[in-house]
Amino acid sequence: MARWEPNTRERLVRAALELFTERGYDATTVNEIAERAGGLTKMTFFRHFPDKREVLFAGQDMHSRLLADAIASAPGPATPLQAVATALDALTATFTDDRREFAARLRAVIAGNSELRERAAFKRTGLTEAMTEALEKRGVPDLAASLAAELGIRAFDRAFDQWADPASQQALTVLARHALDELQAAVNRLDTEDQS
Amino acid sequence: MARWEPNTRERLVRAALELFTERGYDATTVNEIAERAGGLTKMTFFRHFPDKREVLFAGQDMHSRLLADAIASAPGPATPLQAVATALDALTATFTDDRREFAARLRAVIAGNSELRERAAFKRTGLTEAMTEALEKRGVPDLAASLAAELGIRAFDRAFDQWADPASQQALTVLARHALDELQAAVNRLDTEDQS
Repeated sequence: MARWEPNTRERLVRAALELFTERGYDATTVNEIAERAGGLTKMTFFRHFPDKREVLFAGQDMHSRLLADAIASAPGPATPLQAVATALDALTATFTDDRREFAARLRAVIAGNSELRERAAFKRTGLTEAMTEALEKRGVPDLAASLAAELGIRAFDRAFDQWADPASQQALTVLARHALDELQAAVNRLDTEDQS
Repeated sequence: MARWEPNTRERLVRAALELFTERGYDATTVNEIAERAGGLTKMTFFRHFPDKREVLFAGQDMHSRLLADAIASAPGPATPLQAVATALDALTATFTDDRREFAARLRAVIAGNSELRERAAFKRTGLTEAMTEALEKRGVPDLAASLAAELGIRAFDRAFDQWADPASQQALTVLARHALDELQAAVNRLDTEDQS
């Protein structure tokens, strides 16, 4: 039984995203998702997710843990931004290129529904807090910890948008590192006149 | 008639906050707010606000405009952060010291209710976007504009929390300027080991 759990979960997520894309989020029922996932029942669905919205945010706890663990295990002398870069490496490594098309569709479904956008904002807050707390545990003062985490999540969002674009060729990890560098450069120029 | 409008609006806001503090937000009705505001009717209430939640966020449009206008009229060579500092000056100037106790109660009511916290987050996003757009109109690139706006709103939030504390003695303008300096210093140290 346990052997099949991860597969069932993944099938439910893929079925939900397919249906949300085809029919829209509001018009899709939990029954339909379970059925599309290979003739599963509503009961099976609810063993994995509390409601149809949560199917799309199944990774939140794992993502928070990945970020926090990577920050905790960054080398002792790492700066806050270096620790955040390590966290982004750990998180983005789970987004392999075969998931790019899935990511693009997920992004489109979320963008098209205010309830999902709100939920996505809540996930963003959760990930940011996970990084902030992990940085504070390293002794980074709260102000710096929360700013470094904010730059990290902005780098991830920016890179994810680029990566989900079908024309994109680069790995998410590379894009996220680059985005963090860009953000750092921009932030360091905020009190200069030269913004070119 | 028009002569009384601002006063009515202000009375409704004060009555609402009183009742929310005494009885809780959920238990208070629009009728009760109108009555407490000096025997007004529900109809009068709805001429000013779409619902009881919006009473507490009446200033959002004006605050957005204040921020955007100040950024637009900052001196030509101002850096993004200097323009944001000008915006904070304009906004915080409207929070005179006689409003401190009101601010403290408002903060407590919002903190105690998830619907109000969500609405406050939405206001925060609105103010941040107003600053971002105003900075972009000055020619600041989008990345820098949104980071400068984020630092600005963080400075405001931080200063407002300090100001609303009954033990606080300083003007909100002074606290906000100081908070922006602290945030800038922290952000400039994010890629250094020294976080003390």
